[in-house]
Amino acid sequence: MDLFEQLAQTLEERKSADPSASYVASLYAKGLDKILEKVGEESFETVLAAKNVKANGEGKEALIYETADLWFHLLVMLSQLGISPDEVMNELARREGLSGLEEKASRSK
Amino acid sequence: MDLFEQLAQTLEERKSADPSASYVASLYAKGLDKILEKVGEESFETVLAAKNVKANGEGKEALIYETADLWFHLLVMLSQLGISPDEVMNELARREGLSGLEEKASRSK
Amino acid sequence: MDLFEQLAQTLEERKSADPSASYVASLYAKGLDKILEKVGEESFETVLAAKNVKANGEGKEALIYETADLWFHLLVMLSQLGISPDEVMNELARREGLSGLEEKASRSK
Amino acid sequence: MDLFEQLAQTLEERKSADPSASYVASLYAKGLDKILEKVGEESFETVLAAKNVKANGEGKEALIYETADLWFHLLVMLSQLGISPDEVMNELARREGLSGLEEKASRSK
Repeated sequence: MDLFEQLAQTLEERKSADPSASYVASLYAKGLDKILEKVGEESFETVLAAKNVKANGEGKEALIYETADLWFHLLVMLSQLGISPDEVMNELARREGLSGLEEKASRSK
Repeated sequence: MDLFEQLAQTLEERKSADPSASYVASLYAKGLDKILEKVGEESFETVLAAKNVKANGEGKEALIYETADLWFHLLVMLSQLGISPDEVMNELARREGLSGLEEKASRSK
Repeated sequence: MDLFEQLAQTLEERKSADPSASYVASLYAKGLDKILEKVGEESFETVLAAKNVKANGEGKEALIYETADLWFHLLVMLSQLGISPDEVMNELARREGLSGLEEKASRSK
Repeated sequence: MDLFEQLAQTLEERKSADPSASYVASLYAKGLDKILEKVGEESFETVLAAKNVKANGEGKEALIYETADLWFHLLVMLSQLGISPDEVMNELARREGLSGLEEKASRSK
């Protein structure tokens, strides 16, 4: 199982966790708008971090950190709406004509 | 090799493609700001698509499509700045305490 | 009448214009989501332009241009939803404790 | 003097205020990136609030509030970079062919 699916499973489990004990559970409890605000915040922080990467590579760690934050909150959004990350991966694979997860799934049967 | 790495390799190859023949090559030619504008556009389109998902599931396909667009342009951004998607995946795995790619890499040695 | 109110009046008039002849009429015809996508695009372009302002003042014209674009599309959004710019100005004046438009309006009676 | 210019003057004065005593002074002290993050947050909150306006007008107050927040932080951004709101207003007036502030200024001489 790949990392996004592992994360999706972890996120699913936290839906029933105590909102006072888990950041993700507190996000779910606040609802979709709060999750989308976080997606928005992280997208601007990612863009600002990308602008701050220097020619000598300085700033790359910060960009990696912000991009991870953005992907994470996108996975929370998908989870909240009952969509699996694999559905997005399959769409990416389909349009790029790459061997996607559907193909891998069929190969593993 | 997973899908993001396949995509990253494809994106790397397109860096030397004719900008008039490839959408991605034209993005690279226009530079980082144009790529970041696309990341910004896609993040708002993703948020709007998420708001449009109905209780009966209507609108999920559009959200999957927009999220794929956003991920794709984030991969273009990373590629432009010489960052591998694995570096973001490792950061995600690290903070979530999941078996990440570094661990997989060390196991495969 | 101040500029925002003049603009709001112009925007109101364009609601009945031919969408093929007027940019704003075409935006109204495409609906709220299209207008909000433009607000989103312009907000990222504004932030990128702000990052590109140099210490010597280079880039200020581009930032002025992008900020004007963003304000314009915010006025289109307000117009589409039947809100006057004065209502936003009054909210700004109220929270800053400044002499706002309501006060000016009451003084002019 | 109009509201934006009043606000710009207030913002200018707060540049020398104690960051622990004034929200705006604390923003200036944190620097441009923090101000732009706030612009980004408020732009998403504005778009989400616009999506939440109901046909019966419910939600308009929230949208007015978020739009005021966005304009406010755009004024802080302009102030940080030494740009007057009038420069943006003049650009808006110029492109719309409306009687702008330059014209008013020339008339008042």
